[in-house]
Amino acid sequence: MKTLRQYIQHARETGTAIGHFNISNVEALNGIVKAAQKLNVPVVIGVSEGERDFVGVHQVSALVRSLRQKLNHPIFLNADHTYSFERVKEAIDAGFDMVITDHAGTDIQENINFTRQAVQYAKEVSERRAKGQGVTGDAASRSELDFPTEVLVEAEIGYIGKSSKVLDGVPAEIPLDENGNIALSALTTAVDAAMFVRETGIDLLAPAVGNLHGIVKNAQPKLNIARISEIVASTDAPLVLHGASGIGNDELAAAVGAGISMVHYNTELRIAYRDAVRDSLAQNPNEVAPYKFLASAVEAVEKVVEEKLRVMNKM
Amino acid sequence: MKTLRQYIQHARETGTAIGHFNISNVEALNGIVKAAQKLNVPVVIGVSEGERDFVGVHQVSALVRSLRQKLNHPIFLNADHTYSFERVKEAIDAGFDMVITDHAGTDIQENINFTRQAVQYAKEVSERRAKGQGVTGDAASRSELDFPTEVLVEAEIGYIGKSSKVLDGVPAEIPLDENGNIALSALTTAVDAAMFVRETGIDLLAPAVGNLHGIVKNAQPKLNIARISEIVASTDAPLVLHGASGIGNDELAAAVGAGISMVHYNTELRIAYRDAVRDSLAQNPNEVAPYKFLASAVEAVEKVVEEKLRVMNKM
Repeated sequence: MKTLRQYIQHARETGTAIGHFNISNVEALNGIVKAAQKLNVPVVIGVSEGERDFVGVHQVSALVRSLRQKLNHPIFLNADHTYSFERVKEAIDAGFDMVITDHAGTDIQENINFTRQAVQYAKEVSERRAKGQGVTGDAASRSELDFPTEVLVEAEIGYIGKSSKVLDGVPAEIPLDENGNIALSALTTAVDAAMFVRETGIDLLAPAVGNLHGIVKNAQPKLNIARISEIVASTDAPLVLHGASGIGNDELAAAVGAGISMVHYNTELRIAYRDAVRDSLAQNPNEVAPYKFLASAVEAVEKVVEEKLRVMNKM
Repeated sequence: MKTLRQYIQHARETGTAIGHFNISNVEALNGIVKAAQKLNVPVVIGVSEGERDFVGVHQVSALVRSLRQKLNHPIFLNADHTYSFERVKEAIDAGFDMVITDHAGTDIQENINFTRQAVQYAKEVSERRAKGQGVTGDAASRSELDFPTEVLVEAEIGYIGKSSKVLDGVPAEIPLDENGNIALSALTTAVDAAMFVRETGIDLLAPAVGNLHGIVKNAQPKLNIARISEIVASTDAPLVLHGASGIGNDELAAAVGAGISMVHYNTELRIAYRDAVRDSLAQNPNEVAPYKFLASAVEAVEKVVEEKLRVMNKM
């Protein structure tokens, strides 16, 4: 199996993207993994701070690593949007494959400083692991033997909202242009992107290119594909598109075609899961076995993920 | 931390019992573990064949072992009601702490033969693991280093139904006496229990003592406490009470007082989980984040488990 860095490189070379999907539980995880296995493509599982607290930081790490090992399939784990160094360290120490630092809402220099700290720690841990050492600097523990040697760091510049849910409109703090798309003034510039990557040493960059967390009812802003191309030309760091829920498949294909290497979905999976559970409970009011009334939720997640993965992998 | 065998021995010496609770997902697991941590008591997580297929055999093993290690709390994993040797082997090889063979619905000799095969395999694996060998006989793999050295085997004699759900009545194949309790003719005798333990070499025995899987609406049969005492006197094997859902706390305390060392709950947890999810979805129709709308289900499971653990542990 290749490393995550190698899979990302492969995606860049082939003009495809790796799917990143968030989970809150094992049902969603299993649905995502089924779709990735079916299409024989790598996949990244994301957990926000809230999601990883719910499953458990160590439980989700054990789950993903056990699946990767048992299925011999490239399934990686990302600490999505992490707001403090303490939590960056917690995820890296628990065996995550990558972390995302998020100080995108703050002053750019503060964002750079926080991100540098995370990059520095990921490097230290990678060096220790390459020598067979664990987090304490002593010999690696049994579970640590199974941890990835290299941990990647992604960071975000430009604010794209925070909520993976259905929104009535674009959050008020994000300026719009006359077409209802996110104003150019709020997008990441190619110059800033290049500077930010150079200053921080990150492995992946998530820019603001017209995207937004969550789904906006009836008025989903459009991606700025030209801006994606400009940023791709300005930096060697692979680009990650957050907040892809609500974006049409043609637009997704255009973003990947312009050079996006990883795409995040959360809200669409959440809706598919929630609706399936609700409908299943309504249709089977006497069913109490969770593995029966939740089976359709696993399938619903799998279906959404398969559709997105097909587009990202040009299938 | 003691071994599972030692915790069971401790329960026998103190006249308490270990709680065994089934799960289909990580929400139930986390609810159970929270209750066990709160009361500082050991706990066994059970997964039936259907439940372990839903979570994934290796995923559930990784989950329970990661929790045990990380929390340093005695949380063990049992392959509940396993109907074939292939699946016994699968669970043992995946790092489960115990397995239950279930051929209770068949001829007693067939039940003995199947159970012996499982006991023999558990012993072979225990011997291999004591020597640092893995399932293949070579050096243990990284994950196998973390597996329990000793795997316990439980078997069941006497048919007590199969469905962990709400039943309109006792299944027709189980004879009842004039009080609506399970007829003496259908209960395990002390003589059979002693013979079965001797012939199979099992570590734990689940007898039919008036119990039944599932909850019977308005007509839950009563346990035969006298029969429990007779079986306890006839064999050295610790006794396990299956199908405790629907039994009152006083009856549970009496069963534990008579010498039951482990008690199984499933249906009551399933109902608590299902009702909490249904109510949460109805009350928060716009909430799509699973970790938010499922939080009350974790709490509901925790509450049921805590109540049962208090009775079993005389708290």
